[in-house]
Amino acid sequence: MTVAVIPPRSGVAFPLRTGEVLRVIDPEGGQVSDMLAFMAADVGEALSNGRTFDYEETIRLTAGNRLWSNRSQPMLEIVEDRAGTHDFLLTPCSEATFRHFYPDKPVHRGCFGNLAEALAPFGIGPDAIPVAFNIFMNVPVDGDGKLRVIAPATRAGDFIRLRALADLVVGLTACSAYDSCGGAFKPIHYAIERQAPGVES
Amino acid sequence: MTVAVIPPRSGVAFPLRTGEVLRVIDPEGGQVSDMLAFMAADVGEALSNGRTFDYEETIRLTAGNRLWSNRSQPMLEIVEDRAGTHDFLLTPCSEATFRHFYPDKPVHRGCFGNLAEALAPFGIGPDAIPVAFNIFMNVPVDGDGKLRVIAPATRAGDFIRLRALADLVVGLTACSAYDSCGGAFKPIHYAIERQAPGVES
Repeated sequence: MTVAVIPPRSGVAFPLRTGEVLRVIDPEGGQVSDMLAFMAADVGEALSNGRTFDYEETIRLTAGNRLWSNRSQPMLEIVEDRAGTHDFLLTPCSEATFRHFYPDKPVHRGCFGNLAEALAPFGIGPDAIPVAFNIFMNVPVDGDGKLRVIAPATRAGDFIRLRALADLVVGLTACSAYDSCGGAFKPIHYAIERQAPGVES
Repeated sequence: MTVAVIPPRSGVAFPLRTGEVLRVIDPEGGQVSDMLAFMAADVGEALSNGRTFDYEETIRLTAGNRLWSNRSQPMLEIVEDRAGTHDFLLTPCSEATFRHFYPDKPVHRGCFGNLAEALAPFGIGPDAIPVAFNIFMNVPVDGDGKLRVIAPATRAGDFIRLRALADLVVGLTACSAYDSCGGAFKPIHYAIERQAPGVES
């Protein structure tokens, strides 16, 4: 298994084929990785938090849950989850969110800008970027619906594994925002496991 | 104020200009209305549940909250809310959701199909339909993130009023799904209040 590094505050995009397993690792602990997925055959079909909440009947996705597209097709299944806490409510950080939440800090293009650049060669424009599956992100929601973004609870080496249920284009970042990472900018590691699907779960 | 009727299991789309107030009324009680909004100047900019959750810091939107676009612009402000419970997690019901949740019942194109048809003349295609703001929809989320769709708590005549903060194209339905309406298909009423904005809140 070859592990690739996403440097702090950057992002990548790559194909992930049916049956392959994407492992996303938090090498130091306390970091977030925004993940997007699009159908390789037609990038107009993309990850949808709303369809996923509909079919999985929960906003807390973990091992055994699937992530669904806007056209009601399952795209990825979480086959192993050593972290346990992820977010699927919030959009990728962007220049606008930096201006809003960190008015005294330098503006950064954020995960949104990093994803837009990485996905452009696949014909995916910025307006096609939906809510991301924010791996390791810690967003508690209280009984009144109020939410907070706090530091991830991950320890060094925690990971999640997701099996592709279709041929996909995946976007993946090492998050750029202060709050979601507890103020520290760290790398993210990932690997694509290409063994036969039956071996993987 | 002229009140228009959306018959059961159907939908409409119409322009809503800056400062105008959309009043959505549940005339019998217990019905849901899925609402979408797109910027009239560029329909690539649309309502985003993720951006709204980001900026409003809650998943429970009511009077005083604004609904935001995927490009981080405020689109609508809730200026009055006589219902208090709405959903912004779930996607409009569709042929696929009918097959999934009601395998023994006839398939219906649902709010998704109704919105797609109503929005087509404005140049908005089905893939551009995001999570709707589901007015009056009752979706409790428990401490573990599990969600349920139960009958709306609205009484006959309950309403919500939303002021447009930009020139919009709005899509609006009388919901077609069994669970969200407590098993009954009822109409929705709406009105566009065109008085000066200062008079309205």
